Amino acid sequence: MAASQPAPGTPFALALFETVRAMSADTTGVLRSSYGDVESRVLDHLRGVAESLGLASEFDPAGNLWMRRPGRDRGAAAFVTGSHADSVPRGGNYDGLAGIVAGLVVARRLRDEARETLRDYVVLALRGEESAWFGKPYLGSAALLGRLTEADLALKHRDTGYPLAFYMREAGAEPARLALGRPLVDPARIAAFVELHIEQGPALDEAEVPIGIVTGIRGNVRHLQVRCLGEAGHSGAVPKRLRHDPVLATADLFSRIEEAWQDWLRDGHDLVFTAGVVQTNPATHAVSVIPGEIAFSLEARSLARATIDDFNAAIRAECDAIGRARGVRFEFDPPIVSEPAVLDANLTRRLARAAEEAQLPYMRLASGAGHDAAMFANAGIPTGMIFVRNQNGSHNPREAMRADDFMAGCELLWRLVVEFEEDVRE
Amino acid sequence: MAASQPAPGTPFALALFETVRAMSADTTGVLRSSYGDVESRVLDHLRGVAESLGLASEFDPAGNLWMRRPGRDRGAAAFVTGSHADSVPRGGNYDGLAGIVAGLVVARRLRDEARETLRDYVVLALRGEESAWFGKPYLGSAALLGRLTEADLALKHRDTGYPLAFYMREAGAEPARLALGRPLVDPARIAAFVELHIEQGPALDEAEVPIGIVTGIRGNVRHLQVRCLGEAGHSGAVPKRLRHDPVLATADLFSRIEEAWQDWLRDGHDLVFTAGVVQTNPATHAVSVIPGEIAFSLEARSLARATIDDFNAAIRAECDAIGRARGVRFEFDPPIVSEPAVLDANLTRRLARAAEEAQLPYMRLASGAGHDAAMFANAGIPTGMIFVRNQNGSHNPREAMRADDFMAGCELLWRLVVEFEEDVRE
Repeated sequence: MAASQPAPGTPFALALFETVRAMSADTTGVLRSSYGDVESRVLDHLRGVAESLGLASEFDPAGNLWMRRPGRDRGAAAFVTGSHADSVPRGGNYDGLAGIVAGLVVARRLRDEARETLRDYVVLALRGEESAWFGKPYLGSAALLGRLTEADLALKHRDTGYPLAFYMREAGAEPARLALGRPLVDPARIAAFVELHIEQGPALDEAEVPIGIVTGIRGNVRHLQVRCLGEAGHSGAVPKRLRHDPVLATADLFSRIEEAWQDWLRDGHDLVFTAGVVQTNPATHAVSVIPGEIAFSLEARSLARATIDDFNAAIRAECDAIGRARGVRFEFDPPIVSEPAVLDANLTRRLARAAEEAQLPYMRLASGAGHDAAMFANAGIPTGMIFVRNQNGSHNPREAMRADDFMAGCELLWRLVVEFEEDVRE
Repeated sequence: MAASQPAPGTPFALALFETVRAMSADTTGVLRSSYGDVESRVLDHLRGVAESLGLASEFDPAGNLWMRRPGRDRGAAAFVTGSHADSVPRGGNYDGLAGIVAGLVVARRLRDEARETLRDYVVLALRGEESAWFGKPYLGSAALLGRLTEADLALKHRDTGYPLAFYMREAGAEPARLALGRPLVDPARIAAFVELHIEQGPALDEAEVPIGIVTGIRGNVRHLQVRCLGEAGHSGAVPKRLRHDPVLATADLFSRIEEAWQDWLRDGHDLVFTAGVVQTNPATHAVSVIPGEIAFSLEARSLARATIDDFNAAIRAECDAIGRARGVRFEFDPPIVSEPAVLDANLTRRLARAAEEAQLPYMRLASGAGHDAAMFANAGIPTGMIFVRNQNGSHNPREAMRADDFMAGCELLWRLVVEFEEDVRE
């Protein structure tokens, strides 16, 4: 992958990345909110690109964009690749978008080389993968696979408070139909789903390897808003022994959780923990007031569902102990669960073989981040993932991806597509 | 103080409290922001009440309202009583307002009983005591005593970000003149300043005593916004050992501070500590992002300035240690200092004697909360304070004051006024 001789699709890919980046500029980084206007405009643009490549395109009732190149056998289940078009606020341009562009790079090469495939080749641009907007991830793929509930459709947008169903309707989707909970496609009509995505952690960069082949995806349990309720009071006039300070109670909780986390890692568990949103009540807090409450999010992720559940139970036990000791109360909202996913061993082997044949350095690794791929895997669809090295972490404007690394990922996807002729489920 | 026979001024006082409460209703409790419209309208109403009682009224260049009843000797220094008209958001109606109404209750009785005093008797309605609005307390009394700086005038309003000077001009004050730093009155022209105020803590209520005579006022050092800067990242993809999480670092800091605080109390220091405002950055935080930063306020109060300074030094040392251990950085804004104040021993004795003569149960106590009285005391003016019992804490809508307790405080103030004939400084 010498930089002096870029792979043929490179200018096409770079131009497409830059066009979409310009369409979705935030104050810094990009902003493509889930089921928002920018996401819709980006999908419209991608649709135009796909049609110029000879793909037939349509939106499904969840608003996802299907871009299809027919195969020789229209009765065969399709090979589907793609990822999501949305981003976190002030996010990076490649998180999600790279997987759609990769699919189009491969479609372009299929056209340029006039290659036929047995199966339909589909590039799928999904909506609403980022939980930053409605508190729950994988909205587009969940809707596609009949896993979106009435409660999900009522989830409120972080900025406006309007429900997901409102935004879906605005984006041309059909929330009433999605609420029926039936898959929009027959999973048996998808022979494989393969998602290329930037790695959202530092593992490939640390190992100096451009490509990762993913073996499994961490699941998570989230609480969007836990409240710790204490007793407000004058900051100067209430002695320590009479205080029920929710800020100090929550600091105590976080310190205990961090200690337990370290213990669990030492015991060999796969586990990460994050409290990403923390705030006293802006309507009542003040420098000179002991706050009456503080709200925070909690998230625990692991490759093992049991680890997540056991860790959350330990957190609840700490909350009870702290509540009793300090005269405060923790109120939990309902947990939002994303199941861990095991990726298809056959696809993983095929990807590894293709990488070896192409002499692409790669490593196998688990995904710490969740992905739409987990929805497909948990729906029984053979699913694979390709990671591309990323230098500056994810969910921030400095996220980075080298063109050569991306094209190496596209090469791997290409080889899988053209060699993928038999039904992997047989 | 039998409830069956209310003191004569009771209906006047209760009606005035209710009128002002109705003028300043918040969603719950009252809202009279410092140098805001409601504060101005309340002062205008109080001015009308004062004039109906025969007091001559005028606004000083800091916007404070002086309501004066001339004494026999116009050359003698005045007896001044009063408090502040503003409140915290969703605050209680009596915090501040009670001291002004008490002054008017005494003025009304002076008129009704046609009592002459040696000195001018002045009811002073001060502005901008609550730090909730501009981050700094005692703005009206500081301006009056020449202690407001250019930097203070540039302090930003918590909601709008407009500077204090803007709000002062809107309220008819003269910020350019205040910036000269010269007292608006000669402190030698004030023989005594006495402030009646609800107690903002639970001490009187716990002791079942209606009246407190204050011996000293806690000072404080505040940081309005300390930031802890770490490294943002994907909540699922970054392992614990590679994280620089500012939320967990700040939780660690608060836990260490709380432990140190307990140690200092055990060693006999007077000390309270509060982090009243805590928040991750709303523009970038999300449930699935390790936050890049968290901001919080810090406040330490004590009757001894040395205790405050030593405790803040200990906090800074903890920040340095945590920063090194966790790869995060704490950034401190400049501290805002309110000096502790010792109240006038002569006035305190006179108040105690008057309470005994009137058979009013009282106790001596230190004030945990800061008060305008501290500004007067630190300007060399003999200063006293009367506390009235309060059932439900302060800076919250449930703040409570019994009418009988309030009238007992007024009785004590009345006795001090009519007996206060010699110059206490001689």
